[in-house]
Amino acid sequence: MAQPAPNEIFQFSIVSALVDGVASHGIPISALLTHGDHGLGTFRNMVGEMIILDSSVYQMKSDGTIVPITSPSEVITPFSVVTRFEPTQRIKAAFSCKADIVKLLNEMFPSAKNHFLSIRMDGKFKKIYVRTAGGQECPGEGMIAITSRQRTYKFEDVRGTIFGFRCPGYVMGINVAGEHMHFISDDRLKGGHVLGFDSFETDGEVDVSVAMCSKFHMELPTDDEEFNHAALERDSEAIAAAEG
Amino acid sequence: MAQPAPNEIFQFSIVSALVDGVASHGIPISALLTHGDHGLGTFRNMVGEMIILDSSVYQMKSDGTIVPITSPSEVITPFSVVTRFEPTQRIKAAFSCKADIVKLLNEMFPSAKNHFLSIRMDGKFKKIYVRTAGGQECPGEGMIAITSRQRTYKFEDVRGTIFGFRCPGYVMGINVAGEHMHFISDDRLKGGHVLGFDSFETDGEVDVSVAMCSKFHMELPTDDEEFNHAALERDSEAIAAAEG
Repeated sequence: MAQPAPNEIFQFSIVSALVDGVASHGIPISALLTHGDHGLGTFRNMVGEMIILDSSVYQMKSDGTIVPITSPSEVITPFSVVTRFEPTQRIKAAFSCKADIVKLLNEMFPSAKNHFLSIRMDGKFKKIYVRTAGGQECPGEGMIAITSRQRTYKFEDVRGTIFGFRCPGYVMGINVAGEHMHFISDDRLKGGHVLGFDSFETDGEVDVSVAMCSKFHMELPTDDEEFNHAALERDSEAIAAAEG
Repeated sequence: MAQPAPNEIFQFSIVSALVDGVASHGIPISALLTHGDHGLGTFRNMVGEMIILDSSVYQMKSDGTIVPITSPSEVITPFSVVTRFEPTQRIKAAFSCKADIVKLLNEMFPSAKNHFLSIRMDGKFKKIYVRTAGGQECPGEGMIAITSRQRTYKFEDVRGTIFGFRCPGYVMGINVAGEHMHFISDDRLKGGHVLGFDSFETDGEVDVSVAMCSKFHMELPTDDEEFNHAALERDSEAIAAAEG
């Protein structure tokens, strides 16, 4: 199969569907990987957080365990976002607060406010706060209820990688406006959904690699009655609270 | 070049950019046609309405004239939506009010509320109201100001074709939620933006052909300072007023 073009974004379903609890069906991870080698998302019934780095997929669970996905054709994702990541800018930088990283991204890509950015950071983190969703307790349970039970973890002095996207405001509901990033440690033993740009501090400089993405592809669930009947009304506050 | 897959949607830019007056740049019509053979949109500086039927492109101007685009590599579109139209359902139906067509579409595609539909209607119309935008009077002039000067036309007893899309609510701002349709007469002398499902009445039955579209591709303008600096805040009322 032909490789996907670099730095285009592919997503399956929309984030509002998760808010409405649409998470019973989806596409196999193997299909997702035909569209990109880096990404994030979730798994059937929103059990855990997904991170994809260099085509390796990990399920980061709320009990703190990390499961590498070794049979990607057998595992389903109801929502995920991937890209074939070919960073066009690389820089070393240290971050101690949200303002640092926002400023850096705006300096690196001064004209990208209305575009997507894909962002990878490799290095040592002095602290990083993540959460992991435990999954639906019943079919159709919405993301807000799930994240109200989420486990949060603080990791200290850990080497690892953050990967995620900064999305333009106008995609809110389809995706998450602003930053959405997941983290996994180098030893693949710790990870989760990064609780915003303010939730981590680097230990000295880390490697930051970024690409601007101007082509966006979305595949909607078909033959999925949960999706077909969902309200899918943009609830910006709920999405920001659950995914921000 | 390989044909695009049938019944996927490709759009260039987003409708909020037109609201903000972003219409100086874009892609050539020839590039647009690689993504589909049916569609609609507008032209540089929002001069007139575009309809594409069977890969033929027409510019429908506010003075009532229709210009076939014979040099598609030389003509720019700042916003447009196309598909390689392969209808999966065809039916003959008569319409006298909005309720008729909404009911028919829901009967034909009972599970498509959260998907896109592409819709073509061929036949004789007892009456049809359209508008044509005259274009920007200065660079950056927004869509609301332009449509406040739009010309509206009522055609009676005219044979022709309506083509357009019904988009799910969650794409408002990126595209137009609900129906967005353009019309051109069989003699290619009359046409414009159809003023909603309530603005036409068929003369007996017309041929209705429809496809559901579940894959959506969006290309954002690059190296376009107008786009890069635009607010692009979803103004649902303005979009509905201008494009509904």
